[in-house]
Amino acid sequence: MNGSDLRAMATAAKAASRELSRSSGAQRAQALHAMADALLVAQDRLLSANAADLAAARAQEHPAAFLDRLTLNEPRLSAMARGLRQVAALPDPVGEITGMWRRPNGLQVGRMRVPLGVIGVIYESRPNVTADAAGLCLKSGNAVMLRGGREALRSNAAIAEVLAAAVGSVGLPSAAIAALPSADRALVAEMLRLEGLIDLIIPRGGESLIRAVREGARVPVIAHEKGLCHVYVDAAADLAMAGEIAYNAKVERPGVCNAMETLLVHEKVAASFLPAFVARLGAAGVDVRGCPATQALVSGVRPAVDEDWDTEYLDLRLSVRVVPSFEEAVAHIARHGSGLAEAIVTTDHARALRFLREVDAAAVLVNASTRFTDGGEFGMGAEMGISTQKLHARGPMGLVELTCQKFIVLGEGQVRDSRA
Amino acid sequence: MNGSDLRAMATAAKAASRELSRSSGAQRAQALHAMADALLVAQDRLLSANAADLAAARAQEHPAAFLDRLTLNEPRLSAMARGLRQVAALPDPVGEITGMWRRPNGLQVGRMRVPLGVIGVIYESRPNVTADAAGLCLKSGNAVMLRGGREALRSNAAIAEVLAAAVGSVGLPSAAIAALPSADRALVAEMLRLEGLIDLIIPRGGESLIRAVREGARVPVIAHEKGLCHVYVDAAADLAMAGEIAYNAKVERPGVCNAMETLLVHEKVAASFLPAFVARLGAAGVDVRGCPATQALVSGVRPAVDEDWDTEYLDLRLSVRVVPSFEEAVAHIARHGSGLAEAIVTTDHARALRFLREVDAAAVLVNASTRFTDGGEFGMGAEMGISTQKLHARGPMGLVELTCQKFIVLGEGQVRDSRA
Repeated sequence: MNGSDLRAMATAAKAASRELSRSSGAQRAQALHAMADALLVAQDRLLSANAADLAAARAQEHPAAFLDRLTLNEPRLSAMARGLRQVAALPDPVGEITGMWRRPNGLQVGRMRVPLGVIGVIYESRPNVTADAAGLCLKSGNAVMLRGGREALRSNAAIAEVLAAAVGSVGLPSAAIAALPSADRALVAEMLRLEGLIDLIIPRGGESLIRAVREGARVPVIAHEKGLCHVYVDAAADLAMAGEIAYNAKVERPGVCNAMETLLVHEKVAASFLPAFVARLGAAGVDVRGCPATQALVSGVRPAVDEDWDTEYLDLRLSVRVVPSFEEAVAHIARHGSGLAEAIVTTDHARALRFLREVDAAAVLVNASTRFTDGGEFGMGAEMGISTQKLHARGPMGLVELTCQKFIVLGEGQVRDSRA
Repeated sequence: MNGSDLRAMATAAKAASRELSRSSGAQRAQALHAMADALLVAQDRLLSANAADLAAARAQEHPAAFLDRLTLNEPRLSAMARGLRQVAALPDPVGEITGMWRRPNGLQVGRMRVPLGVIGVIYESRPNVTADAAGLCLKSGNAVMLRGGREALRSNAAIAEVLAAAVGSVGLPSAAIAALPSADRALVAEMLRLEGLIDLIIPRGGESLIRAVREGARVPVIAHEKGLCHVYVDAAADLAMAGEIAYNAKVERPGVCNAMETLLVHEKVAASFLPAFVARLGAAGVDVRGCPATQALVSGVRPAVDEDWDTEYLDLRLSVRVVPSFEEAVAHIARHGSGLAEAIVTTDHARALRFLREVDAAAVLVNASTRFTDGGEFGMGAEMGISTQKLHARGPMGLVELTCQKFIVLGEGQVRDSRA
């Protein structure tokens, strides 16, 4: 595939997106069920494509966790199919009309929710993402161009072909789902510049990938960069509750973006809270680094260095800082937080409201674990990712965030007089 | 000013934006009134800064229309002050909480509207934009960095200083309003890359400026590119209404982005509609170019060449095409439209609904002039511009579009169990 093949693929996707935008929600739900069926029917073909990817990846001595994410098997294909059926059952965001109002001249003005058009998804070597992303895009009326990790090239190509054929089988355009058939990085660079054909690029993966996408993109990008989340235990916290929330935020699943990386504790409660809590973390295998005040209160805690406050560990590690005030906690979060999820534990109503207002993050939580920050937990259904940027989609990015709103105006012959 | 001065200015703006995000709507409205007062009090200073800009621009032999846009005088300063007071009176978008829902575990999840942070505005040599943009940003709780055209450098610097001092006079941070004190283009390039300090760049101006901003930006950009708007006269149109709407869309103010550039007419009504309508346009001084069918129906119409269908004339010129079907009208708009405003004139309900659904533009209008596409006419108050992009802000960009929504989560100690 060269640059002009890529442009042809994107042009076909654009045409497909126009057709999709005219489809009914029922047709798109039918396509999703056909896609789910097709994954099961094509199981042998998909597993053998995956086996070839796996053999090559093993030969390259990728680590076990990497190979695990790359692996497809019967239960995982079933889970992918089930995921598509769940997306099929979600409410259709397309066509919703909101806030129709009437102007003095009788014009009615409102907004109609419509698909974005063509969405480019760039992601890791995880073949299940191919089906997830295709399902969310199709449900929301968008065409999708998929570019997964190079190690999953055969798996992704096979999955995308099967899904595209399923879309065609219900009378919708099969060009609505396309995977780049080459791992050539130059193609990604070209994809990022297909203004007018691709409407949005969603990169998923490590910081270096996301930085490269941002640098190279002319098409709008919504990235999920990283999660450096804090829990602040206020002077007025219920300390038992604070312990449960902070423990959950750190330990329940440390490798995900909405896990806590830094604990902030008000100095008034530090002595009564920290020793027992750090001991509990230690028993769970958490490596704790602390500020001098933390070290003074809890023996055996290693010093936190400057870099710790800016590090997303994604691991059983935690930085702890004792702060002299609510204000300093908020300032620490502004300096070091990644803008994903920030939590306060407090019984003080005014301070809870101030935290909600003053902390600038995709999700701000009072008396709840940062771990709730995802589309499923928020009740929004499946998500494409969690955006830490502010424009268009902030926080969990579900079906609605894969659409936009256009203005619709209903008149009866009105014309404008600028002099009026 | 060098790159590190610019960074210091942006850092101060960021700190100011944090303070602003904690301010009340009443405080910000008070600041806007103080800004309006200050423009009037500082009149002599502002007019003399503007006189220096004008003298330099005259020496460079800029055209009369350019000099007119650059000119400040007493009525224009009064209009700027009045504009600030009108913005002060608009509803405060900040702090609005929408759609609070309750999850099965008792968590309450909702969204709170908050300022974006720091907004960079890059614009033409029109000093009135300095006050308009500063007013909209401040009202919506954002700090603003202003970079107007080089020919207005002294005027903009003086206006921004006066406005910043006014903000300071009511106890809000004066660093919330800052104008770049240099016309150095390298500074603009650096400004576009201040990720983490500037949250949004809004370029206003010609295509080349906007292209340069898009190419150079790492910070998100919302641009208004151009307006190539169509009016489609359907087979089922009320032809008298069609004539009024199309005439208004072309003639009332041809130099603006929401004016019509191409008229599409269904072949069934072309013969009864076009001859009289083109004659009326001719009497208004409009130069009409047409497709062969148009030329066959109306004598004296020059041929439209391929390029015409893609040209934003911004002038008393019009391309006319006779189309064989509704579908071809929609397809023509998809191929050539800029995605700003598209109108249909029809009495057919089903076709009106199809046009609303199938045409992809910031505003889609039925039986109304494209000229209504602006924030004031839509009843949204003053606007920062009209976005033709799909993400975050599509169409007129008012106060609400200068904000974003964060998730807020109210708990009572909930923690997450992934295994559940």
